[in-house]
Amino acid sequence: MRKGFFITFEGNDGSGKTTQIRLLSEYLKEKGIEVVLTREPGGTPIGEQIRSILLDKANKDMHPVTEMILYAASRAQLVNTLIRPAIEEGKAVICDRFVDSSYAYQAMGRGLGLKAVRTVNSYAIGDCMPDITFFMDIDADTAMQRRNASGEEADRMESEKMEFHRSVYEGYKNLISLYPERIKPIDVQKSPEQVFESIKAYVDQLLNKLEG
Amino acid sequence: MRKGFFITFEGNDGSGKTTQIRLLSEYLKEKGIEVVLTREPGGTPIGEQIRSILLDKANKDMHPVTEMILYAASRAQLVNTLIRPAIEEGKAVICDRFVDSSYAYQAMGRGLGLKAVRTVNSYAIGDCMPDITFFMDIDADTAMQRRNASGEEADRMESEKMEFHRSVYEGYKNLISLYPERIKPIDVQKSPEQVFESIKAYVDQLLNKLEG
Repeated sequence: MRKGFFITFEGNDGSGKTTQIRLLSEYLKEKGIEVVLTREPGGTPIGEQIRSILLDKANKDMHPVTEMILYAASRAQLVNTLIRPAIEEGKAVICDRFVDSSYAYQAMGRGLGLKAVRTVNSYAIGDCMPDITFFMDIDADTAMQRRNASGEEADRMESEKMEFHRSVYEGYKNLISLYPERIKPIDVQKSPEQVFESIKAYVDQLLNKLEG
Repeated sequence: MRKGFFITFEGNDGSGKTTQIRLLSEYLKEKGIEVVLTREPGGTPIGEQIRSILLDKANKDMHPVTEMILYAASRAQLVNTLIRPAIEEGKAVICDRFVDSSYAYQAMGRGLGLKAVRTVNSYAIGDCMPDITFFMDIDADTAMQRRNASGEEADRMESEKMEFHRSVYEGYKNLISLYPERIKPIDVQKSPEQVFESIKAYVDQLLNKLEG
């Protein structure tokens, strides 16, 4: 049996992430590949309980280190009970956000530094890293305008100051330069079909490599 | 202003821990020292939410790594928002369980190893270690008998197999040999008053050292 693969999406609500995850999932299923869709924080029963703590606006006193470690706990459960087993069974796992969110939000946005976040997460995920990560490239101010226009209520993370969101965006830009082989920035200022063409090209490359 | 200090208690329910914490608290208050009593997991509003996840028997699918990281998250919140500020304000902090529980239960009981648990917790607590840790020395089988006799319902951790509880007990014995200056085993097979005499002797030593 062929080993599966692992693709993650990073980017704000309003970046078209959900649509692209759906298109990619359909594309892979048409090829006869079994797809597991999941998300962070959460994705498992225990992870969803952790998600509730993380995103509850009432938890405004959460210390940045607590936040960083809680994301890692949700991720440990997701990797060990869902992602790794699925990859070993030959499935394609698509995850809405993964460890790069912790690099951008906690290491850079909260200023905890990459070393701390990488070390704690190394215990959470081991060697389970995505084959490709798509960064839906929408700057912090545009993302905020779109969210405000959508009328949806902001969670604890989304309610942070613009300054925080801008440093998170800079964090993603840094990550792209640190991991250019893995993280692919995607220009989202096009039609969903055009955006998916870029994504499909990278995924086809990966499939060729895995089959070669 | 004098800096405060930090005392932790380790040991099972039925070891007399609660009684000794109360006696120590009263003793310190009589000396005019402000005392903060807290517990793990929990002790803060966010920590108590994490506690609920950790101890809920419905969460039987929790991976050992998730468990280890969740305890560290609760601890990060407790140290950063309650314990460290209290010590800096000159108070005495008494905590029912602390990082040694993770060494005994997760590093040894779950077999994750001291290095992993120590590393993750170093980000959670920094240099905030107890001045004294009292280990209420009651072997796993006796503790289990006492709990069964009490009729209280066991939580997710307490419901583990005897084999697990025995390796946790061995874990504590290892810790005492690793940190003999900090961790003091307390013989609990005596009257509460006699047990408190041993505890008081160590605390008086600490107070003398702090005042010297």
